[in-house]
This record gives sequence, C-alpha cells and structure tokens, in this order.
Amino acid sequence: MNKIETVEKQFLNHVKKMSAYSEAIGLIHWDMRTGAPKNGVEQRSEVLGVLSSEVFALSTSKEMEEYLEVLSTPECQEKISEITRKSVEECKKDYERNKKIPAEEYREYVILQSKSESVWETAKEKADFSLFQPYLEKLVEYNKKFIEYWGYEGNKYNTLLDDYEPGVTVEVLDQVFGQLREKIVPLVSAISESTHKPKTDFLFQSFPKEQQREFSLAVLKELGYDFDSGRLDETVHPFATGLNPGDVRVTTKYDENDFRSAVFGTIHECGHALYEQNISKDLIGTPLCGGTSMGIHESQSLFYENFVGRNKHFWTKNYELFKKYAKGQFDDVSLNDFYRAINESKPSLIRIEADELTYSLHVMVRYEIEKGLFNDEIEVKDLPEFWNMKMEEYLGVRPENDAEGVLQDVHWSGGSFGYFPSYALGYMYAAQMKEAMLKDLPNFDELLEDGNLVVIREWLTEKVHRHGSMKKPLEILQDVTGEGLNAEYLIRYLEKKYGEIYQLS
Amino acid sequence: MNKIETVEKQFLNHVKKMSAYSEAIGLIHWDMRTGAPKNGVEQRSEVLGVLSSEVFALSTSKEMEEYLEVLSTPECQEKISEITRKSVEECKKDYERNKKIPAEEYREYVILQSKSESVWETAKEKADFSLFQPYLEKLVEYNKKFIEYWGYEGNKYNTLLDDYEPGVTVEVLDQVFGQLREKIVPLVSAISESTHKPKTDFLFQSFPKEQQREFSLAVLKELGYDFDSGRLDETVHPFATGLNPGDVRVTTKYDENDFRSAVFGTIHECGHALYEQNISKDLIGTPLCGGTSMGIHESQSLFYENFVGRNKHFWTKNYELFKKYAKGQFDDVSLNDFYRAINESKPSLIRIEADELTYSLHVMVRYEIEKGLFNDEIEVKDLPEFWNMKMEEYLGVRPENDAEGVLQDVHWSGGSFGYFPSYALGYMYAAQMKEAMLKDLPNFDELLEDGNLVVIREWLTEKVHRHGSMKKPLEILQDVTGEGLNAEYLIRYLEKKYGEIYQLS
Repeated sequence: MNKIETVEKQFLNHVKKMSAYSEAIGLIHWDMRTGAPKNGVEQRSEVLGVLSSEVFALSTSKEMEEYLEVLSTPECQEKISEITRKSVEECKKDYERNKKIPAEEYREYVILQSKSESVWETAKEKADFSLFQPYLEKLVEYNKKFIEYWGYEGNKYNTLLDDYEPGVTVEVLDQVFGQLREKIVPLVSAISESTHKPKTDFLFQSFPKEQQREFSLAVLKELGYDFDSGRLDETVHPFATGLNPGDVRVTTKYDENDFRSAVFGTIHECGHALYEQNISKDLIGTPLCGGTSMGIHESQSLFYENFVGRNKHFWTKNYELFKKYAKGQFDDVSLNDFYRAINESKPSLIRIEADELTYSLHVMVRYEIEKGLFNDEIEVKDLPEFWNMKMEEYLGVRPENDAEGVLQDVHWSGGSFGYFPSYALGYMYAAQMKEAMLKDLPNFDELLEDGNLVVIREWLTEKVHRHGSMKKPLEILQDVTGEGLNAEYLIRYLEKKYGEIYQLS
Repeated sequence: MNKIETVEKQFLNHVKKMSAYSEAIGLIHWDMRTGAPKNGVEQRSEVLGVLSSEVFALSTSKEMEEYLEVLSTPECQEKISEITRKSVEECKKDYERNKKIPAEEYREYVILQSKSESVWETAKEKADFSLFQPYLEKLVEYNKKFIEYWGYEGNKYNTLLDDYEPGVTVEVLDQVFGQLREKIVPLVSAISESTHKPKTDFLFQSFPKEQQREFSLAVLKELGYDFDSGRLDETVHPFATGLNPGDVRVTTKYDENDFRSAVFGTIHECGHALYEQNISKDLIGTPLCGGTSMGIHESQSLFYENFVGRNKHFWTKNYELFKKYAKGQFDDVSLNDFYRAINESKPSLIRIEADELTYSLHVMVRYEIEKGLFNDEIEVKDLPEFWNMKMEEYLGVRPENDAEGVLQDVHWSGGSFGYFPSYALGYMYAAQMKEAMLKDLPNFDELLEDGNLVVIREWLTEKVHRHGSMKKPLEILQDVTGEGLNAEYLIRYLEKKYGEIYQLS
C-alpha cells in the first residue's frame, strides 16, 4: 500500500469509529425517549457525556488534522475514492467549526445549553418568559461570537443557516418566504370567510390506542417501511432515528380522542425513516450515512404526510380499513367528508399542531425573529411582543401568554438557531419533487388508490434516499427537478387543494 | 491537591469512563435481545466491537499501568478510600490477566470465540458434535495456554474457576459436590419409585400471554422490584441486566401452554435484579458496581425462584390472584395440588428445564468434564460418550443425540470454562443464607403469606446487595452465615421438601 492508500484507510477507520460512537449515542437517545426507567437517567446522561466527548475529541484530534491535511492535497484528491473525498469535506467543515471556538468557551456553552433547557421547561410551565430571558440572551451572545469566529458571507445569520441547510441564505429565504406569504395570507383569510367549512366533530371520538397502533402498523407497511430494518414505539414527542440503514426506528404518540396525532405523526416519521432505510450501504460507517440536510429530510416526511397521507386517493384505498379499526364513529361519514375534515385549516397558536396551509407562516415568524436577533435589529427582551405582533400580522391570532407564544418551542433553549427555516424549505422541496415525480409517474393518484406505494418509494430512493449526504441539498433539488428553490409549486398546490375543499373559486 | 489525591482522582475518572462504555455495551446487548430489527445487527456488532476494544484498551493502557503502580504502594494504600482500594484490586486482576496473554494470541482467540459460537449453533441444530469438535479442541487448547500464562495453584482448573468464583477451588468443589450427590442421587431414585406423584396435566393448558404478563408484573411488584428503576420485556433466553442501579431490566419468555416458564423465569430474574437495583449508589462508576460473583448472583435468583416462588406460603398469598389471570383451568385444583405440581421432580436431559432437586446433578456433569479436560484426563473427542455416561450415572437418563446431550449449552462455544459450578454454588449459598435469615426473620413463612416481602428484600440488601463487589463471595457468605461453604443446608432443605411432597418417609 502506498502512502495515500494508507492514510485513506486510517482516515476511514477513524470516521468508522466516530460513527460507531454516534450509533451508540443514537440508541441511548431512542431508549431514553421510549421507556428507559427514570431512575437510570442521571447515570445514562453521564454515559452520553463520555461518548459525546469522545466523538468531539476524535473530530478535532491531531490525527484528524493530519488526515484532512494530507487528503486535501490535489494529488490525494485525485486518487482517493469519491466517498472518501466527500467524507473529508464533511469532516473538514466540522473540524473547522469546532476548532475555531476556544475550548474553554465551548465548554461553557455546553453547560449553558444544558441549563437553559431545564430553565426553558420551567419558564414554559409557568408561562413566564422573564425566567428564560437571561439564558436566551447568553445563548444569542455566544452564537454571535461564534459567527465572528466562523466568519460569514453577506448576512451574519447565513452562517447559522449554513449549519442546517448549506447553500440557503437570507437572500434566498427572504424571497421565497415573501412569495409564499403573499399568497398564503389572503388564502387563510378567504378560508376563514368561507361558508363551506368541513364538519369535524367525528374526529374527536374515542379511538382505542391499541387499534390506532394496529392501523399505524398497517399504514407503515403499505408505505414501504421495512420492519426487518425498524420498529414502531410509543413516545411523548415523536421522532424517527436512523441508527444505521438496517435499524431505523419510528415512534408515535396516541391520543385516544384524536387519532390524527398517531396516524399523521406515524406517516410523517415514516417519510424520515424511508430516507434513512434506503441510504446506500456503501456509506455505512462514514459521515455521509444520513440525510443530507434538515430541509431535505423534512421534504421526505412532509411528502408522505401531506402529498400521500392527506391525499384523497390514499384514503380511497384505506378508508374502509380505517373504519374497521375505529369504533363505528365513521360509519356514517362519507369519504369526502372525512377527507375534508382531516384537511381542515384554521389559524392556530401552536406550530406543531398547525395544518399544512398555515404551517409555513409559523416558521416565518421564527425566521424573522432569528434574522433580527443576529443582525442586532431585535433584542431578546422584546421577543414576546414581537412574536405576538408577527402572529397577528401573519395568522390573525394573538397568544394570550408566552407558553402558547414565544416559549412554545424547545429549539432555542438548546442553542439551535437557523433550524426553523428547514421546516418550510422541506415543504417547498417536497412540492417541487412531487411535480417532477408526476412527469415519471403521471399515474400517481392511481398508485395511491391501488396501494402500490413501492413505486413512489423507489422513485424517491433513486433520486434522493440512496445518496445520503453525497450530494448537497440544492444539488439534490437541481438533479431531481432541474431547477433551484421555487415557491411556486407549493403555492399552486395549496391554492388548488384549499380552493376545492373550501369552494373558494 | 497532593500527588496521591491527583492520581486517585485520575484513576477514578479512568474507571468511570470504562464503566460508561460498559453501560452502553449493556444497553446494546439488551436491545439486541429484546426486539432490535434484524437487518441492523451486523452494523450493531461493529459498534459493540469498537466499544469493547475501547474498554479493553483502557483496562490495559499505559495510564492504567501507572495508576495501579502508584496506588498499590503501601503509602498510597493507606491514604486512598476503601472504594478506590478495592477498585484498584479489581483493575489489577484484570490488568494482569489481560497483559499476560500476548496481544496477537488474544486477537486470534476472540475471532475463534465468535466463529465457534456460530459453528456450535449449526452443530446443535444438526445434533452433530463432530462439527463443533475441532473448535472446542482449539478453545480448550487456548485456555490451557492461558492457564500457563496466568499460573495456577494446586489444580490447573482452579485458575478458570477463579475467574467466576474467586476462592472456590477444585478441592472445595469435589467435597461439596460429592456430599450433595451422595444424598441427591438416592433421593431422585426414591422419588421415581414413589406412588404418591403429583398430578400436573392442568399446568399445560392455555394461559394467554397477555395474562401471564399481567401476573408477572404483579409478582415483580410484590417481590419489591422497583419499576422506576427497571422494566419487563420479552425475549428468547431470559436474562436480567444491571445497566446502573437505577436501570436494571428483566426479561422473560411466555409459553402459552406452560406458564411456569414466564412465572418462575421472571421470579428468577427478579432475584438477580433486586441485587443490582440495591447496590450502594456510592459504587456507581466504579468496577465494584455489580454482583461480586456469578455464584452470589445466582444465590439471589435461586433464593427468590425456589425459596420464595416455589414455596407453598407464597402461593397461599397469590394463588387466588393467579387463578384470576388464568382461564379457569385451576378453578378445581386445590392449593396443595397446585403446589405439588409446580414442584414435580423427575430426571430430565436438559439443564435449563431441570427441577430444583435434579438441577445440581446437571451442573456436576459439566464440572467433571471441565476438570477432566484441563487436567488432561479427558479428550474433547470423547466428550459425547463421557457426557452420556455421566448423565446415566447421576440422573439415570441417557441422551439420544448430542443436541440433547453435550451440545445443549452455549457456554463452551464462547470459551466460558469454569462458569457452570457457579449455578450449583449459588444454590448452596442461597440455602445457607435462608438458614441465617430465619434467625433474624423466624416468621419468614408468615411474611410470604402476608405478601410482606419487602422485609426479606431489605435483609438481603443489608447483607448482600448493597456491597456490590466490595466483598469477595466467600467473605459475603462468612459475614452472612458465620461459616464457609456448607452443602448440608441445601441437602436438608431438599430432603425435607421432597420427602413431604412425595411422602417418602
């Protein structure tokens, strides 16, 4: 073996070790959220601390520095495999981000994060922003300093966005969010004035948990989720987690008086899981073995949740089965009334409970705030008022307290700034992909009616899933759709769907 | 901080890190045996490999060598805490065991172990010892070499025994096993000739799994198992695992046509779990935070399984509840007939299905073989015949093939020699502890009838559980009972119990 081959092999062993630790961390997180006994949690957190420190140490080690240096030379770049090259790129980004922050400062920040999360919990319980404010101020201060260490192009907030959605900047978001808002806000108003509103009372009748679970399992199977490579469990805040492509778990939450939480939640997480289950096995053990960005990940979950799960043709196939699992409350409800009920849209205060039309507006409120904070245009102390004002402006509703307002999301308490836009980006990506899919699969609706969803999954695997992080998000989008980010597809979809449901034309 | 304090602190951090890795490994093992999807197993094994290598590396590292050297000096021994001192002792034993085997040889051995386990599986399926024979020969050869590296006192086999039950030697075992056998063998014969045999047909009627689970949960609760520090899951080969004292999980197996598997299996694992749940929190993060030996661990599980779970007074309390969970098949069965049925004894071929009277004889067959192998008195190729001969001699039954004979246990395929005696030792320890307990709790039977089992658990916690590995097994035994290993208590218990059930006198 020559020098380059040796270093390449050492580097790949190094990242394999990192990915082994990450997999163990992933399993511990899954376990903590699906039934780990409470008295073991304190010690388990210590274990997480040890493993996470080890991953951090490996990602910033002297060895890593040397591997990256050697493998980045033009001579090496030419000779190493594409997987190694992209892995080097990923590790380099991480290395530089991590190395630029002074160790002591980073340590303080980690402690602050963990304190802030528990303070946020209390603050939310008491609906009192003032408790959380000093912590949020510090978190913002640290991130401002990090932006200086890391550098930025154009807008300072771009540096934070780049962590979740490389290539998507404030300039891009201002444009697409503006377009979206311009069309959605009037649509929301028109709906609220429509006299043709769906009846929804039957949604809230008792639906036993065990029956919801059985139906969820049947749906997962139909969507193409592989139970030899995963399992379904119950949790409080549903998630999917890809430990490796052969072990991608989904979780859901059962509300016996509102089956939508479990059914649409499961479909959403299944979208994430199908992504992770179908990543090429060649990428196992490298940093590329995961979704390429938050936005692309969300495009898969929202594709399934909205374009499949809330699609009338899906229910043409599944409504009879669904009725069998239910306790008779849908026996007198027509398919059309059921379809309209599960697509009811009305402005609400809580993002995670929002319908697909108003959801993006919730995201934009957070985007405007984050952008303002990192450009020194808003101060943390003014957030509750700014939040409420924006909610009124975009959605026409105003929170009565901070728990249902600025304190509702966990993200900021963990120092995650720049994450929120991914949710809306994913939705736009999904609408664009759906259009592209229709060119190859013009019989999309029929496939749903036939329950032939494997064809849809295979299309997404070919175009998106299998690549893992080998392609950047906008590269995926370009390759799949032949164009860049474009809000028009989502707008057209929403106008058509809600125009019909509420008979707006 | 002075030099000694500094080194003590570094050492404690080092073992804390090792115990964090071990906890992660424990969780992965639990997960693999309770429902991890099969396609993820290959990659998960890689993760186990990485974590195990890391623990091994830490246990034999240069740092460890230095800590042990410094902390073993008389000056240090005087100044460090008792927990540190005992931890040093544990780590030193490990360090020396591991360091004495040449690295390359150890690597080969690990590969051999893993191959042998899968070959053993096939051999067992095909009931063909000849497939497994060459692997077993190599495993024995390696262990013979290890004995030379490690050294031995008296019998060579003592070195292997010492790994599972420090202080218990061939000299001790020959004596107590001889005593036991001398009394049990005639008892087994007398029973087979008794005309007063229990009726057992009602045991094998359908008992739905979900109902078995509910009853098992109720029993766990009564025994004092803390569900805030554990959970009950289903598995193929039941086990208990102490990840940390706040997270000690039990597993069980449901046979709808034989409830005994789940009920007595759960009680057995609960005995192990109560030990681990009640180890002093001061020992968390040290190598002392676990049961002190296989034998003492088994003493706790067998205490609960036999002295509690198969005790008539326990069923006086629980039989009515049990009948409620069953499907009516016990409604016409008296408590006495039920008690006799669950204590039926007859010679059988499979150790893990043996009753409490014949169980030790199965262990002795294995003991005689292991002793013979490591003293060059038996050859691997002669094992099937030797096994069958011993089974006939001790139990009066002869396997028809190797699957129900010499191939039945997994232990040897993983290189575990010296482990089996612990099972019988645990039983003797338990009988001795029961006698000691009666001095403090002469109302033992009443406690069972009242369901007041917390008093029993507290006694065991005080005497055994809380010490973790701070005391050696024979030290625990001495402190609890005031004497050394003594087979008489178990013999007396068995003679009395089975004499009554089979009306032998």
